[in-house]
Amino acid sequence: MATGTLHSQLVFGCFLVLLLKSNLHTCEQFSIAFSKPSDCGVGGYFDISSLSCAKCGADQISGKSGLNCECQTGFKVLTNNGASITCQKCPVSKPGVTQDGYECIRCSGSVGEDGKCECPTGSILVERNVNGTLLEEAVCEACNGTVPALSAPDAKGSRCVRCQDSFISMSQSCMCGSPNILAGGMCFASSSLPTSVVPTVSFAQLGLAVPSVWFSGFLYSSAAACLSFTNLTACQTLGNMCVLNMHSMSTIINDACGLYNTIYRATAAQGNNQNIPYWRINMPWLYYGDQPGLASRVLQSEPLPVGFSFKGTNKNTNIELLAAVYTAQGEFIRWESVGGGNLQLCPDTLIREQAAYIFGTAYKQNCVLSVSDLLAGQSEPLFYDIFLVQQKAQGDRRLLAVPILNLNLQFNGQFVNQATNMNSWYLTRRLVLIDTLSGREKSLSSTPRVIRIASNLKIRFQLVPNTQKGAVYPPLMTVSYSDILITDPAKQTVTVSFSVEYEMDQNEARVKTDIALGVLGGVAVVYSLLKTASWKRRIASPLIDFPTILKFLLIYAGDLANVFFIITVGTGLYWLIFYKTVKAQQFVSVLLPLPSQEERFVTYVGCAFALKAVHFLHKLLVQLSVDIFFIDWERPRSKTSKFVEGSGEGKPPAAPVSIWRTYFVANEWNEIQTIRKISPTFQIMAILFFLEVVGFSSLALRDNSSELRRSDEVYTPAYSRILRYGLASVMWLCIGFIQLIFSVFHERFVEDKIRQFVDLCSISNISVLLLSHRCFGYYIHGRSVHGHADTNMEEMNSNLKREAENLCGQRGLLPNSDVQTFQISITSRLRAQYDRILEPLTRRNGPSRLVDASANPFEQSTKAYHTMNRFLGSVIDHAHREMDYIVKDKLLFERLIGMEFIEPMDKSIFYNDDSYAFADVLFYGNESTLLIFDTLFFCVVDLGSQNFVLAAVLTYLQQLIFRLIRNGLGRRNLVIKTLVDKRFLI
Amino acid sequence: MATGTLHSQLVFGCFLVLLLKSNLHTCEQFSIAFSKPSDCGVGGYFDISSLSCAKCGADQISGKSGLNCECQTGFKVLTNNGASITCQKCPVSKPGVTQDGYECIRCSGSVGEDGKCECPTGSILVERNVNGTLLEEAVCEACNGTVPALSAPDAKGSRCVRCQDSFISMSQSCMCGSPNILAGGMCFASSSLPTSVVPTVSFAQLGLAVPSVWFSGFLYSSAAACLSFTNLTACQTLGNMCVLNMHSMSTIINDACGLYNTIYRATAAQGNNQNIPYWRINMPWLYYGDQPGLASRVLQSEPLPVGFSFKGTNKNTNIELLAAVYTAQGEFIRWESVGGGNLQLCPDTLIREQAAYIFGTAYKQNCVLSVSDLLAGQSEPLFYDIFLVQQKAQGDRRLLAVPILNLNLQFNGQFVNQATNMNSWYLTRRLVLIDTLSGREKSLSSTPRVIRIASNLKIRFQLVPNTQKGAVYPPLMTVSYSDILITDPAKQTVTVSFSVEYEMDQNEARVKTDIALGVLGGVAVVYSLLKTASWKRRIASPLIDFPTILKFLLIYAGDLANVFFIITVGTGLYWLIFYKTVKAQQFVSVLLPLPSQEERFVTYVGCAFALKAVHFLHKLLVQLSVDIFFIDWERPRSKTSKFVEGSGEGKPPAAPVSIWRTYFVANEWNEIQTIRKISPTFQIMAILFFLEVVGFSSLALRDNSSELRRSDEVYTPAYSRILRYGLASVMWLCIGFIQLIFSVFHERFVEDKIRQFVDLCSISNISVLLLSHRCFGYYIHGRSVHGHADTNMEEMNSNLKREAENLCGQRGLLPNSDVQTFQISITSRLRAQYDRILEPLTRRNGPSRLVDASANPFEQSTKAYHTMNRFLGSVIDHAHREMDYIVKDKLLFERLIGMEFIEPMDKSIFYNDDSYAFADVLFYGNESTLLIFDTLFFCVVDLGSQNFVLAAVLTYLQQLIFRLIRNGLGRRNLVIKTLVDKRFLI
Repeated sequence: MATGTLHSQLVFGCFLVLLLKSNLHTCEQFSIAFSKPSDCGVGGYFDISSLSCAKCGADQISGKSGLNCECQTGFKVLTNNGASITCQKCPVSKPGVTQDGYECIRCSGSVGEDGKCECPTGSILVERNVNGTLLEEAVCEACNGTVPALSAPDAKGSRCVRCQDSFISMSQSCMCGSPNILAGGMCFASSSLPTSVVPTVSFAQLGLAVPSVWFSGFLYSSAAACLSFTNLTACQTLGNMCVLNMHSMSTIINDACGLYNTIYRATAAQGNNQNIPYWRINMPWLYYGDQPGLASRVLQSEPLPVGFSFKGTNKNTNIELLAAVYTAQGEFIRWESVGGGNLQLCPDTLIREQAAYIFGTAYKQNCVLSVSDLLAGQSEPLFYDIFLVQQKAQGDRRLLAVPILNLNLQFNGQFVNQATNMNSWYLTRRLVLIDTLSGREKSLSSTPRVIRIASNLKIRFQLVPNTQKGAVYPPLMTVSYSDILITDPAKQTVTVSFSVEYEMDQNEARVKTDIALGVLGGVAVVYSLLKTASWKRRIASPLIDFPTILKFLLIYAGDLANVFFIITVGTGLYWLIFYKTVKAQQFVSVLLPLPSQEERFVTYVGCAFALKAVHFLHKLLVQLSVDIFFIDWERPRSKTSKFVEGSGEGKPPAAPVSIWRTYFVANEWNEIQTIRKISPTFQIMAILFFLEVVGFSSLALRDNSSELRRSDEVYTPAYSRILRYGLASVMWLCIGFIQLIFSVFHERFVEDKIRQFVDLCSISNISVLLLSHRCFGYYIHGRSVHGHADTNMEEMNSNLKREAENLCGQRGLLPNSDVQTFQISITSRLRAQYDRILEPLTRRNGPSRLVDASANPFEQSTKAYHTMNRFLGSVIDHAHREMDYIVKDKLLFERLIGMEFIEPMDKSIFYNDDSYAFADVLFYGNESTLLIFDTLFFCVVDLGSQNFVLAAVLTYLQQLIFRLIRNGLGRRNLVIKTLVDKRFLI
Repeated sequence: MATGTLHSQLVFGCFLVLLLKSNLHTCEQFSIAFSKPSDCGVGGYFDISSLSCAKCGADQISGKSGLNCECQTGFKVLTNNGASITCQKCPVSKPGVTQDGYECIRCSGSVGEDGKCECPTGSILVERNVNGTLLEEAVCEACNGTVPALSAPDAKGSRCVRCQDSFISMSQSCMCGSPNILAGGMCFASSSLPTSVVPTVSFAQLGLAVPSVWFSGFLYSSAAACLSFTNLTACQTLGNMCVLNMHSMSTIINDACGLYNTIYRATAAQGNNQNIPYWRINMPWLYYGDQPGLASRVLQSEPLPVGFSFKGTNKNTNIELLAAVYTAQGEFIRWESVGGGNLQLCPDTLIREQAAYIFGTAYKQNCVLSVSDLLAGQSEPLFYDIFLVQQKAQGDRRLLAVPILNLNLQFNGQFVNQATNMNSWYLTRRLVLIDTLSGREKSLSSTPRVIRIASNLKIRFQLVPNTQKGAVYPPLMTVSYSDILITDPAKQTVTVSFSVEYEMDQNEARVKTDIALGVLGGVAVVYSLLKTASWKRRIASPLIDFPTILKFLLIYAGDLANVFFIITVGTGLYWLIFYKTVKAQQFVSVLLPLPSQEERFVTYVGCAFALKAVHFLHKLLVQLSVDIFFIDWERPRSKTSKFVEGSGEGKPPAAPVSIWRTYFVANEWNEIQTIRKISPTFQIMAILFFLEVVGFSSLALRDNSSELRRSDEVYTPAYSRILRYGLASVMWLCIGFIQLIFSVFHERFVEDKIRQFVDLCSISNISVLLLSHRCFGYYIHGRSVHGHADTNMEEMNSNLKREAENLCGQRGLLPNSDVQTFQISITSRLRAQYDRILEPLTRRNGPSRLVDASANPFEQSTKAYHTMNRFLGSVIDHAHREMDYIVKDKLLFERLIGMEFIEPMDKSIFYNDDSYAFADVLFYGNESTLLIFDTLFFCVVDLGSQNFVLAAVLTYLQQLIFRLIRNGLGRRNLVIKTLVDKRFLI
């Protein structure tokens, strides 16, 4: 077959080349040199098959495109076999070449530079007869411009055709004689319009007025055609020119907007389009009113007829915008649905771009565009008249005009739209996104000197206050332009953004918040005063002095922090529920606060955190300075030799009471100092898991979706700080609450460190006296029911067994009672005695009094220890009549507000306390404070960094540091107060 | 001024409307009804100013666009004032309307449907004289098609112009008479080409052959013009048709590719373009060779002349692709730089799109496109000849042809390019992305029935094996197309993707890994055998039985896990360093493995984790079953009455030795069970901080950048699993190492829990005997240097003070020695005795033997306790001659490999041990195992989920659970072995 032969030929050819060139390179490398059409020079052309330059034949030059060859001037084409031509010089008798290039001809007129015949203006060139026969001489024929011929040369100058209507209607001929005015290829009567128009476009940002070939060519003719002939496209063209001028109005009446206004006023009698004022019939609608001031009436007087709703059968979250698109020449192109990137200049996928038009999704798109791309993509600007579609019923579509706030508009030289006050705004219609036309200086096909681009475009919806039906005011589109002087388009860039915002009046919410703050703040004052009073009683000080005021402030800081915390969490939860959950917002009634409206909220959170931190540090300090003493009830048990207990000095007794039980109890106390009801690390891990892994953080995005997992393909809006705070704090509290419930079960059924400690006291025959205030504290009664605990394993085990079998008495302080823990209000006398015994120790730590008895501090302190042990034991045993005490229950109200009504005057009062209130001097009893502090710490870090992981890490570090501080200093305090060597607190 | 007046008029007008309509609605709502040009009907037009329908005047119908009105057929335009026209019926004598519509005329020919005169084919319509005067009757003039006029009607049929070259060259006239063939507007000689061509395009995915108007109109004419006239654009057109046919070749020779081949073979004598075989002069280059099989020679025989380099002065990471772009008609448009989205169909910002052309960045872009957008955007397909630019020196640009692997190509009905074997591939050139042309059935302007889109486009670079200079083979572009039957374009979508991949041969790396695995695995076997032997000695069992083999396997699992771990971390680190760090890759020498090449690595990691888990669980089990006993050295000290120590029953001694010291020591032992050298939670938090907050995770992205923070604006490639593993494991190990160093300092200067425990033993006069194996264990000598520890605070303090002042003996077991901790190898005899004493206790926990002595288990166990206490005390005191021991140092080598060379036959051996080796039975002494296990756990979770936060959370949970298990079961073991009640282990 032929295929085989050809193939072998081919292979052979390749090998031949190989043999000739003696390397593999050429056959395998498949590379060519780069050349482009402009490289080929005048005598060459670019061969599109081989992608390389080739030489033209004799008498030929390259054509305009550089892709083929043409005959030189004065040569005609002789043959043309597709790939190549041959040329022949025309004889002197027929020096011209015909338009098609294939023949030579004699010219009756002149021969042009391109070698072809030329005719004067108003004439046409005739080379052939009507039937196609070539003439010997090309004739120039003048077109007959009078009635009835009314003809003029066509654009190519080869035929006479009917001339333009305006000439005929002005002069009944194809001449536009004086006083008529010829402009833009049309003929106008001299009219009321000024004939000298402003042909420059002012680019205010650059301080540059560019003479625009578009304006100089067509501004007057458009205006005149609009006014004289009511030419619809001319009116639109004029309007577009005004738009290109940024709608700027001034006293100058011969710029685009001035001419527009002149015609607008002149045609007042014609009435308006569609009954809309400011929209003159036959003209484009450019302004709302003829001067600024109508903005609030347009924007805030009446809501849209159809409301928005996030959920339910009437779900309506689709913002449908429709634009009437016009070319710069004023031609209507089409109705275009706004969406697929026509207003969004940044490239993105359709699905992400469409997210901008879902009601409630805060949308923002940012990017940097290359100017060269803009120039290449935008040959001609398009003009948009934007409407919002309101579908009342099936088929009944109403279009609501969307007003535009052009920030670059100048009204009498003032940028009125940049004012914050709506009353000075001048709203407009019709939008242009990229203007590469008005900046062209020399010709319409040249590169513009300046381009203008809508670099910021924002659509803002505003909710009607107090709406329940999702009513919103008409949207406002705010646009600002950037002027770019073209210097090096390939390197120049421009930043553009497009955003959609939703706003509601937050004043009401603010007022409500302030009221709540006021009320709760007031309650907090009262409550703090009560607590201060209680504190005064507990320290047994009647004076109101500076420490009292300081204490009040510290207490008030804690309460106020709680108030701020409640209000902020409530607010966050409110937004979370109303904006995000499934059942809420049948109709849109709330919209998220804008970032700028969140500042106040952030301040509140900051206050809550700062106050809580003060409160927490204060609590920590109080805990680190409690007075604690372990009362050892054990007495030496050697029956054979009875020692006198009081004899501190002298020979030690044969069987001293072992200190190890005290060490054990102290060690355990040291260990429970920082245990908490919840596991803080688990808390952090759980938070991270839910927020970052499960994806709850998606709930804080500024849209109304409550999906947890967002794919990469959909648009992800920015985060709302309020929602982040609400989410994080509520989640933190919830997980904390769940952990608390779990800890209740865990303590009941598995292990309760606090009860274990109380048990241990009982087993080890040691009581604990804690004085958190001067005259207030806690007492854990640990007297062994067996009389002795300092014994060997057999006895310990049998004791435990007996107790388990209820064979011995009950552990309580009172006979037949189980109550082992008490809150105690002690008399000042008792406290004074307590302080007196401790004096040698405090002196040791006090200012240097090294002079007296510094010889043996050990001995002194052990002596104090024994004295204290005996003294407190005897007090508990009612041995001191003047320092007696009574045991009673707390009243319910006393319990509730946590203070005592009765002052201990004569006798100390021991209040029964089943709930282990002594844990108040540990982390354990202050779980709520710690939890709230941690929550606020986490949230504050997150508000600052918008990063839950960072917040988690820092919260962990914070907890770690405070735990170390509490442990270290607490241990030091324990060493000082109980005289237990720190080597046993491990 | 006029302005004021007009303004007040306007305002007045508005108020007038208000008064008339008595509501605010109309004035404020600015809404209009929606209507579009097609709604306006035949008798109306769409007013582009008011955007509503308006009625046409009398005798008028709407024009084609619907935006204006025209006169009905048979009516001429009378007046035209821009906005509206008036029409007048033509008289019966002049029934035709001129082409411009302004005059009536008599037709010599017929009157067409549009009311204008018509002429037969070959004639032109003449309505006006040459000078523009209207004729009374329109004349049909036949064009003179013979020499020398050679004219034919132009496209509009209004003038005679020179006819097409092919007619003239075929017939020397404008007729294409038989035997010539008229096709596609050209005239051909009957040639060797088959005249009946295949006009259908086969869409293989749909099983559909669509008759294509493009093919039926121009396939034959292109081929004939290419062959007969060597028309360059015709040749390109023919080539493009072959491309539209997916380059498919078969035995049919009259489809596009068949014709291409026919001409290719027929023009073999003309030679090739640019010395490249397969690229025939004047023709497009479509194939590499005339049948499959050349792929490996094209792709892998020679690297590119210019290599890539990531760093340094020669940095060259820019992949510059250039494309020659042709239209479907075969016209060359331009050289286009590939980049700004011309191959990437998904919309994205320029900066992200450019990331595809940075060497080493694994790029993948995915999206779903709407078919309606594709139809709207792509009026006509473009064809790309793609070249890679190689810039050897300034100005010397060579273009290397990029071969294309079209997966949809059929060679004799086989999809040869879908094979995995390169040898059957058939490489091609010229790419089309979206083909909306060939699927058009009726006319070139109709909607196509089927469109074809390049839905997967992949550029693959392959590194030359063993290159040091960044040499790569020529890239390969793989494309596959989707055929879409157009049914409802607005709803149809198509998924497209574009990716750039970098590949290197990983075989060498694999071999190296395997060698390392083999060598290290072998070492592990030897080491495991040694450890098993040591274990056998320690349990004093000489037999090799099933437990021995099991033990060996368990030990081997641990060692093998280490081997896998070392290899995987090494591999990860290797890629991290070589691919990411600043100084490496001066020239590209390695490329990341592709996801498919990572599978083996992932398997290794899985093995490492599984084996390590087995090892860890085994260690845990061993730890949970150690034998432990606290030896209390304290003896009753009452000098007055001397009791016999052995008398367990009878009356208790007056001053029993307090058990509380034992409780204290046991409690502390319980607490140090799960402490670790590092803080595992801090470890997790630090990892999270560095990976997620600081942004180290960016290092695992598949590109060569080592930036930590990536902005949202730049492209983010996918993650490499190897890099993620390398990063996570190295970082985990580093942070662990830093924590270890910190812990060394912390233990030295702040607090060392283990030394504290040893101290405590000494102070409390209690020794600890730990037996981790049957005949091997640890001994902590805690005999108080003061003789007694069970004493009161004074004595304790004075004892401590004396010791601090070095006033007493040293703590060591041997006189004048400080060594308190020992590793012990005990004799079987000693162990047997130990077991015998414990028998009553083990029996209690053993199978139910409730019958004997169940009366008092307490008593039995305390008895056993005392017996054990006395026995062990006497052994340590050398009181048992047959169970004596010696103290010695371990040899260096014994220390290193952790086994003992001497078997304890007669005497037990106590090895001095300063390094607290007893921590081996705690978490503390197994930090490396725990650290590696945690690392692997973290990495395995991350490999599965690609989520560091999830990995952190799960690792935390894992640590928590194992700590709880270790604590709970360890405590239970302690209770059983030491007889300390669990209430004291808190």
